[in-house]
Amino acid sequence: MIAETPTPPYYAVIFTSVRTEGDHSYAQMAERMLELARQQDGFLGVESARNEIGITVSYWRDLESIHQWREHAEHSLARDKGRKEWYKSFKTRVAKVERDYGFDVE
Amino acid sequence: MIAETPTPPYYAVIFTSVRTEGDHSYAQMAERMLELARQQDGFLGVESARNEIGITVSYWRDLESIHQWREHAEHSLARDKGRKEWYKSFKTRVAKVERDYGFDVE
Repeated sequence: MIAETPTPPYYAVIFTSVRTEGDHSYAQMAERMLELARQQDGFLGVESARNEIGITVSYWRDLESIHQWREHAEHSLARDKGRKEWYKSFKTRVAKVERDYGFDVE
Repeated sequence: MIAETPTPPYYAVIFTSVRTEGDHSYAQMAERMLELARQQDGFLGVESARNEIGITVSYWRDLESIHQWREHAEHSLARDKGRKEWYKSFKTRVAKVERDYGFDVE
């Protein structure tokens, strides 16, 4: 779903990736990482979609909370495994959201 | 594919959406908008994925090029139609990419 984020400024981590063939326990790891991320101080929400490429955008209160999540031991292990098994290529971009606007039929 | 963007800083427009049922000429419009965006001054690249939600991230040199694209007549018409026919809800976030890093098996 579309993340319900607060009024800017806040931060977005845009993670774009191309997967290798096969699962290699990827789905299980992805679910676990999401569960862990939600518990982090400063986590604001996440959006994810995949077909030819995958895009996951996570939203954070500030750079400090992104840094803390990056240093998380289990997340670091998952990143190492990602480079070895799950991803052919990826790109991570850290961006400061300056403004947002939306639309909802409801 | 993963967009090949220059060294930061540059800008990202993160467009997250939930579609209505049916196509309503959506695919045709989406292709046309991509074709137009690529012609804009300051356009750096785009990444897109959709399953339950759609995420399209376009990258731009600066706020001025984002503004110019927003003012583009055909793009404005498409946005109006998007609110009426194509989207149940969407959120647009304008963010300044401060750093990026990646990985590529090749």
